[in-house]
Amino acid sequence: MTVDLARCLAEAYAVALPHRGQGKVADYIPALACVDPNHFGMALALPDGTMHVAGDADTPFSIQSVSKVFTLALALRRVGSSLWDSVGREPSGSAFNSIVQLETEHGIPRNPLINAGAIATTDRLIDGRDGDAVIEEILAFIRARAGDEGVDIDLDVAFSESETGARNRSLTHFMDAFGNLRHPVETTLGVYFRQCAIAMSCTQLAKAGLFLTMDGRDPRTGEQLVEPHRARRINAIMMLCGHYDNSGEFAFRVGLPGKSGVGGGILCIAPGQGSIAVWSPGLNEAGTSLVGAIALEHFAYAAGWSVFD
Amino acid sequence: MTVDLARCLAEAYAVALPHRGQGKVADYIPALACVDPNHFGMALALPDGTMHVAGDADTPFSIQSVSKVFTLALALRRVGSSLWDSVGREPSGSAFNSIVQLETEHGIPRNPLINAGAIATTDRLIDGRDGDAVIEEILAFIRARAGDEGVDIDLDVAFSESETGARNRSLTHFMDAFGNLRHPVETTLGVYFRQCAIAMSCTQLAKAGLFLTMDGRDPRTGEQLVEPHRARRINAIMMLCGHYDNSGEFAFRVGLPGKSGVGGGILCIAPGQGSIAVWSPGLNEAGTSLVGAIALEHFAYAAGWSVFD
Amino acid sequence: MTVDLARCLAEAYAVALPHRGQGKVADYIPALACVDPNHFGMALALPDGTMHVAGDADTPFSIQSVSKVFTLALALRRVGSSLWDSVGREPSGSAFNSIVQLETEHGIPRNPLINAGAIATTDRLIDGRDGDAVIEEILAFIRARAGDEGVDIDLDVAFSESETGARNRSLTHFMDAFGNLRHPVETTLGVYFRQCAIAMSCTQLAKAGLFLTMDGRDPRTGEQLVEPHRARRINAIMMLCGHYDNSGEFAFRVGLPGKSGVGGGILCIAPGQGSIAVWSPGLNEAGTSLVGAIALEHFAYAAGWSVFD
Amino acid sequence: MTVDLARCLAEAYAVALPHRGQGKVADYIPALACVDPNHFGMALALPDGTMHVAGDADTPFSIQSVSKVFTLALALRRVGSSLWDSVGREPSGSAFNSIVQLETEHGIPRNPLINAGAIATTDRLIDGRDGDAVIEEILAFIRARAGDEGVDIDLDVAFSESETGARNRSLTHFMDAFGNLRHPVETTLGVYFRQCAIAMSCTQLAKAGLFLTMDGRDPRTGEQLVEPHRARRINAIMMLCGHYDNSGEFAFRVGLPGKSGVGGGILCIAPGQGSIAVWSPGLNEAGTSLVGAIALEHFAYAAGWSVFD
Repeated sequence: MTVDLARCLAEAYAVALPHRGQGKVADYIPALACVDPNHFGMALALPDGTMHVAGDADTPFSIQSVSKVFTLALALRRVGSSLWDSVGREPSGSAFNSIVQLETEHGIPRNPLINAGAIATTDRLIDGRDGDAVIEEILAFIRARAGDEGVDIDLDVAFSESETGARNRSLTHFMDAFGNLRHPVETTLGVYFRQCAIAMSCTQLAKAGLFLTMDGRDPRTGEQLVEPHRARRINAIMMLCGHYDNSGEFAFRVGLPGKSGVGGGILCIAPGQGSIAVWSPGLNEAGTSLVGAIALEHFAYAAGWSVFD
Repeated sequence: MTVDLARCLAEAYAVALPHRGQGKVADYIPALACVDPNHFGMALALPDGTMHVAGDADTPFSIQSVSKVFTLALALRRVGSSLWDSVGREPSGSAFNSIVQLETEHGIPRNPLINAGAIATTDRLIDGRDGDAVIEEILAFIRARAGDEGVDIDLDVAFSESETGARNRSLTHFMDAFGNLRHPVETTLGVYFRQCAIAMSCTQLAKAGLFLTMDGRDPRTGEQLVEPHRARRINAIMMLCGHYDNSGEFAFRVGLPGKSGVGGGILCIAPGQGSIAVWSPGLNEAGTSLVGAIALEHFAYAAGWSVFD
Repeated sequence: MTVDLARCLAEAYAVALPHRGQGKVADYIPALACVDPNHFGMALALPDGTMHVAGDADTPFSIQSVSKVFTLALALRRVGSSLWDSVGREPSGSAFNSIVQLETEHGIPRNPLINAGAIATTDRLIDGRDGDAVIEEILAFIRARAGDEGVDIDLDVAFSESETGARNRSLTHFMDAFGNLRHPVETTLGVYFRQCAIAMSCTQLAKAGLFLTMDGRDPRTGEQLVEPHRARRINAIMMLCGHYDNSGEFAFRVGLPGKSGVGGGILCIAPGQGSIAVWSPGLNEAGTSLVGAIALEHFAYAAGWSVFD
Repeated sequence: MTVDLARCLAEAYAVALPHRGQGKVADYIPALACVDPNHFGMALALPDGTMHVAGDADTPFSIQSVSKVFTLALALRRVGSSLWDSVGREPSGSAFNSIVQLETEHGIPRNPLINAGAIATTDRLIDGRDGDAVIEEILAFIRARAGDEGVDIDLDVAFSESETGARNRSLTHFMDAFGNLRHPVETTLGVYFRQCAIAMSCTQLAKAGLFLTMDGRDPRTGEQLVEPHRARRINAIMMLCGHYDNSGEFAFRVGLPGKSGVGGGILCIAPGQGSIAVWSPGLNEAGTSLVGAIALEHFAYAAGWSVFD
């Protein structure tokens, strides 16, 4: 029996739409706070190039922590398994920016999808290079995946991130104190704040995630971007750690590896099937898009893609 | 293309066999310490009733924490969503018997697969009944699933568990102090220690897990044991929390919901596909069967069952 | 210049009296909850036998944690420095019944004046003996110091302590799990709950504390009860740890080693000078008698006994 | 009976001398690591101007954390009780540079004598002024107390402190993230690193501490530097928190308010009696001068100055 994925997407959009505007828009920086909470878009990318979209699928938004998935892939490609000297691969059981675990575990963050772990991952990705070159590499990678040279950094957001980045600076200096930082704090954070400020649409984001559905191979170019076992690793980490302290709930409801950002975007990977991006700015208590999570739950159920059924 | 599952199992067994005897046998109670470390068995149960086995598949062993999966299913069936008032559904990010999280989160354990959470789950399952009646219900449930009336409790093990149960008693009194216990400590622990001491073979255990591969329905009897969304919940929790502080590594390597016990058993659920039980007493540093994890990794890869590829 | 201590006491009583009835009476057991909050007594005992009293100085109250000082003295006398294998001598920086520190420090409580540390101290004092014999020894010691055979245990309170003792049971089993308990949990707690339930008046308590003002020698009998350096140790621990998370504030305000109990009693030691007991049931947020602390602050200032001026 | 304090000092010096060279010299910055471990000096300053010295009493050393006492006094004088909005007054129960407590207590350090608390205190002392002006005020205060214009900052040490200050930067940004910092991180740390790098001899340091023995009045100039109750507060904090996780042991052994620094210096205050400074670079496991603590213990005992006997 073939599932009509276009219909699944349309239904999921319709089911979630009445919730639009619910939740709390991130307000720690002005550029995020002023986004219209009624935005809601979805995009589904299939390995064969098919796209299905709904709502504001082509409006760019700040991908924020979703960027951690791409830098993780790039860092694994660049430094390989030695990345795991700098960051763990287990759920953290604590908030996205907690420092307690860092102290008891001597400066090694739990996983690459919490802030400290993403900063450590970026630090390893830099690998002695100039920060600007690294951010260019990240952008080039994402543009190539999205097939769209228009993907860019919102420098207003990047600047605001840096302005309000006391907690991230604290985490970074803390890792430095334990010898778990290879570049100056501001070099690493300079890349990190800019990667978080990349703006993408759902369409671009869904396309950019496709390589993780195909064992690390870009289905458009045929290029093997990361080895299959590394794609599997990334998917496993997204499933277990992609939504901070809400990862268990998301896994149950959606049943797919995913990563959320405080900009209201979520990227979900259905291995072998397709990549889904949703965006709606209102967040639930755990910092995940409230409307986005509802839409993904319905889509995964309708498509039969949840891995737990 | 059809995968020859019998062959996959045989290969996985062969690949893991040279590691037999590696790892550390649990020694906190004599009954576990004296088990021959060279035991190694596997069993695969398919919804259509097919069984494939290898090695010591019919030797009973102490299932220990694997029992938490069954009491979770029974508790959800009995008290429904109100179970989540007593226990969370998120990874813990700490050791199986840590009490720190319990203090900061006011006596609510993180999930039903760490000790405190399993004790809270058992406490809710008791639901005012006599402890003996509850342990009978657990046994009856497992026997019916395994289709084998021979499944029983090893009372030596149960007695030893109680004798050495200081940490579990501490956790239980701690929850009691926060009002998160509905029965006397020794009533709840009386059931808990006995459920951990249930002895089963790989064959029995694989069969007993089948209902979780079939949306909560026992494929043998057709009975809907738990609602589909509860089976999904259990699978999601097993994926994210089934192996304490090693859950991320297990998810990456095996890619399936699973639960390990210090007796050396592991139960793995491949939703829609089948249920796999392995047993070998030597444990890795995280308390998961070392040989068992190797075997499962190879089987899941060969069968194409990992959900992350 | 001679200070008129009788006048200092009378003035301190007068200054604190208007605050009588303020604060919150401990309500976790009925026997404490029903005490009249307007009670307020003070007693000053001098080494030469002189007594000065004010208010309800002869009404017995539940000494609760003040008892920890006497069991500490007895345990040091019985097992000497080996006591420090079981309990530390540093401030805890956390609440009186926290278990977090116990986990990170492997079952060794921070000091003998927090609950876990007092339980460990009592456990060492038991030293293989019958619980009843030990509680008799504690009573005999206190009666001899107070010169009053009427000091006794309030068995209602003791029973209620045990009934509501989940947290203390958890702490005790936790220490047991780390091998830091030498007797069955209920044996140790049986002594502990009864020592906390000893009822004494301010007059009795002030007399009982005199040996700590005289380098461990009972000024009445001339008996050297503990060696001088042990008395110094006890005084230092009272100064640094006598009031849980309020020890710093108490040290500043009163400037003397002291120990408070949730029954509203406080015992203060002025080395070389005298021993002061106060009682008023209303507690401040940190669990110290609100009126008692005000009275002690004024007395210590007027008498010039604060060690920090 | 009059105690011959000169003789007490000489005896204490003689008793501790054989331990000279023991312990571990701080090596986290080169300027400290290369100090000769055989240095050992003592100085006793009395309110009447009398000085007694022994050994290397006139060799300058890096006072490090002893400086926290002076900035605390200056901050209390400048901003009064509002300082306690930014920093607590209770023992921390954790290491000198722990960040865990800062997270659970929302960026408010436990007391002004741990690193985070001293940084918060310095931040409040700055009070909108230029960092250079503030460090000049600190120097002027210390020079006036010591009656010696030669006291100065070792800029090599200050520069090294900043170079290796990752942990302190992390703590400072962390407080900033909680809104508990009033100036830019580098402004506050610029003052902090320089105050730690002040070099003083035992003679200078003992003199500089005298105002704390005299209720906040400089006995040389008659100037009331801080109000009496603030001097009492500082002494109480030194007693309870002056030696990080070794404060209890120091209180027992020496029985006086004190503050140690990793440069090997200790300042001790005997209220109403005198001020003692010792210096020897080898540190015990808790970071306190090993030889210095032995000398102080013997001196306090011989002089009868311990407040706990």
